[in-house]
Amino acid sequence: MPSALLLDLYELTMAQSYFAHKKQTFATFDLFVRELPLNRSYLIACGLEDILSYIKTLRFSVKDLEYLKGIKVFSSDFIAYLSRFRFKGDIWAMPEGTVFFANEPVIRVTGSIIEAQIIESFLLNTVNLQAMIASKASRVVLAAKGRPVYDFSFRRAHGHEAGIKVPRSAFIAGFEGTSCVEAGKLYGIPVTGTMAHSYVMSFKHELDSFLAYSVTFPDRTILLVDTYDTRKGIENAVRIGLFLKGIKRRLVGIRLDSGDIVSLSKFARKALDKAGLDHVKIFASGNLDEFRIKELIDSGALIDSFGVGTHMGTSVDAPSLDVIYKISEVTDEHGDFLPTMKLSKGKVTYPGRKQVFRVKDSRGRFAKDIVALEKEKIKGKPLLVKVVEKGRIIYKQPSLEAIRTFTRKNLSGFTGRLKEKSPAYNYPVLISRKLKELRRKLSAELAKRQ
Amino acid sequence: MPSALLLDLYELTMAQSYFAHKKQTFATFDLFVRELPLNRSYLIACGLEDILSYIKTLRFSVKDLEYLKGIKVFSSDFIAYLSRFRFKGDIWAMPEGTVFFANEPVIRVTGSIIEAQIIESFLLNTVNLQAMIASKASRVVLAAKGRPVYDFSFRRAHGHEAGIKVPRSAFIAGFEGTSCVEAGKLYGIPVTGTMAHSYVMSFKHELDSFLAYSVTFPDRTILLVDTYDTRKGIENAVRIGLFLKGIKRRLVGIRLDSGDIVSLSKFARKALDKAGLDHVKIFASGNLDEFRIKELIDSGALIDSFGVGTHMGTSVDAPSLDVIYKISEVTDEHGDFLPTMKLSKGKVTYPGRKQVFRVKDSRGRFAKDIVALEKEKIKGKPLLVKVVEKGRIIYKQPSLEAIRTFTRKNLSGFTGRLKEKSPAYNYPVLISRKLKELRRKLSAELAKRQ
Repeated sequence: MPSALLLDLYELTMAQSYFAHKKQTFATFDLFVRELPLNRSYLIACGLEDILSYIKTLRFSVKDLEYLKGIKVFSSDFIAYLSRFRFKGDIWAMPEGTVFFANEPVIRVTGSIIEAQIIESFLLNTVNLQAMIASKASRVVLAAKGRPVYDFSFRRAHGHEAGIKVPRSAFIAGFEGTSCVEAGKLYGIPVTGTMAHSYVMSFKHELDSFLAYSVTFPDRTILLVDTYDTRKGIENAVRIGLFLKGIKRRLVGIRLDSGDIVSLSKFARKALDKAGLDHVKIFASGNLDEFRIKELIDSGALIDSFGVGTHMGTSVDAPSLDVIYKISEVTDEHGDFLPTMKLSKGKVTYPGRKQVFRVKDSRGRFAKDIVALEKEKIKGKPLLVKVVEKGRIIYKQPSLEAIRTFTRKNLSGFTGRLKEKSPAYNYPVLISRKLKELRRKLSAELAKRQ
Repeated sequence: MPSALLLDLYELTMAQSYFAHKKQTFATFDLFVRELPLNRSYLIACGLEDILSYIKTLRFSVKDLEYLKGIKVFSSDFIAYLSRFRFKGDIWAMPEGTVFFANEPVIRVTGSIIEAQIIESFLLNTVNLQAMIASKASRVVLAAKGRPVYDFSFRRAHGHEAGIKVPRSAFIAGFEGTSCVEAGKLYGIPVTGTMAHSYVMSFKHELDSFLAYSVTFPDRTILLVDTYDTRKGIENAVRIGLFLKGIKRRLVGIRLDSGDIVSLSKFARKALDKAGLDHVKIFASGNLDEFRIKELIDSGALIDSFGVGTHMGTSVDAPSLDVIYKISEVTDEHGDFLPTMKLSKGKVTYPGRKQVFRVKDSRGRFAKDIVALEKEKIKGKPLLVKVVEKGRIIYKQPSLEAIRTFTRKNLSGFTGRLKEKSPAYNYPVLISRKLKELRRKLSAELAKRQ
């Protein structure tokens, strides 16, 4: 159960001021990504599961309230209000696994302006990490062209929680498994892993280490062959392969973690096949990402499967999303919602309660998205789904496996250009005529607000 | 209490193989950074507090063991061993706040090879995040040249836990506070924050929003002035400043979050001073990092304080450390420790049980570090301190404030060149003659291990 204090202080100072001045005011906020990051043609929605369980359990504990009292920023009546606080608004969201683009609301919150403001930081933090990782991981999966990819990022993920959320997000994007055992336990993701260099080094001879391991795990041995001379390591692996074959077991694979992977993989394949060990797979790891995997495959590397760590687990080329949470409408003194928007230079937003429609072409492929006002009649699939109604979760979260399947299907609905590594392709995201008009009218009006 | 399953599966498969073959084997592992990342001349040790509480409470729970049983990888006697598992080894570490460099062991673990292996992933994950952030944050603090800097990164940190660990690491490095309330509660870090654009937009007029806020918080108002036209926003802030002055209160500041910060800050300073509001501070935020802050200050921006978010909180130019955990000695069949090392191309490590000595020059400044065998007599301060003895924590963790002071003092012992933004300066880290000899001798010997 996440702490209610996982937020920026200003959510609470604004809330206290709203409490004093705008108790009866309601508002709608859009959570969206302003610009796609470097190298990304699309993003994948992820994080809704955590958001729903946060909304469900969101309470300020006695200790939270004591802390807030202690910092002498808040009034006692506001703290009393927080002690009874529950989220009672509505939330619409794109289901996890939905492909989305810049300027499309991924989450839309309508509620009292206080409650809608208080949940901002948590929602941003959650979507930022999980959508960022799912999107990066999806690129890696595409680059591997059907070869299984495994998450090895735990040690370089940003902390223990990221170390668990990264494999979940990557699994949704099509990874086959993870090295992180806790993620396996929590989410049922297949776990994988065999040995490190230190294991090999703890024995007097490399062959001793290989033998010891394969005796312990005769059915799941993958030998790490690059601790000393990699070619000799491969020869030792062949010995173990033959030994296991002799006792009617199978060496699963070898792992290359350094050196010239292309030539080493060819050398290994040849040596293994020559010894009648064509069932033995070749795994590669070590600073891999979508670019490096493409390069390896294009250069003829004979790799069956990839272990991908740091670059995916930190989304190294784009370690954050430009994800923001902007007010789009607010009630007036009569309780009527009026559209609003931000005017700052280069940061203008779209006003009003919006929906995103995904439109197919005549061949049934996704041709464009249209961001429109919710009530516009547009032929296309609305992507935002109501998940919370008056504070109650009304969305049945699918199984992780189902989300993963949905992601794959969703992505396959786009043309190939979306999935090219680079340069990034601009899928058309249009703004409806009505929304454009509203924005134009409002711009002039809002300029008078100063 | 962190889960014992926060580890890579291979730690456990290796452990089971050690359990079968090497129950009586002991080993030493070094945790260190192989190469300094882009733009970094130094790193700051951070994360020891979490590591010590992990070591103290490390147990495999009934649910953990059930999960491990369920995946059908482990033998029942190994699972029984895990059910009784406690860490009983020794750990030496650099105290949090210690400046360190590439190839210097930051943590050294000696124990049964099983237990030393099992804690690997957690140690790497923890040091990777926290040392990475402390190091990035330290650069930001130096760039601000004495102006207070605040952490605004929660929304873009990699998940909820990183959102708490980032402000702690940044505070150690010299940040003054954070926007993250949970970090304030957990660590006593000062929290800060006032209003977002949505607050301003929820009112009919900007001035109404400013007024409402300053009535709610007459002693802690910082007005965000760039929601509409920033110069008009500054003029409205001046009105509020005069209003507060009239009722014997003080406007704390204004915040610039977009636009041409240099000219806007000059405009604001002039307008405020002219109105007799020279006590009102000017805060800047929005995509800041050490490079941008230097640029702003060098261009004459009149900024009193900086809010730094995404770039620091994700260490955007180097979102991971090349942190590794390598075996350096292992016992033979007589129980004697023998040095060992990794030979893979470009990844060679240093063998033996080591210490890092920091040597001063005649003027009392740090002149060089020497990585040596532990028992060598070297004039210099040994940086690794014993923190765990036979599984018992023997290190008294200083207060966060004390760590922060220590960091500042430690850094001030180096010459200015270490602290230049770029190009990165190479502080001399030498390898002792004896250690070089040992490595040379071992190289030849180890090559025969295949």
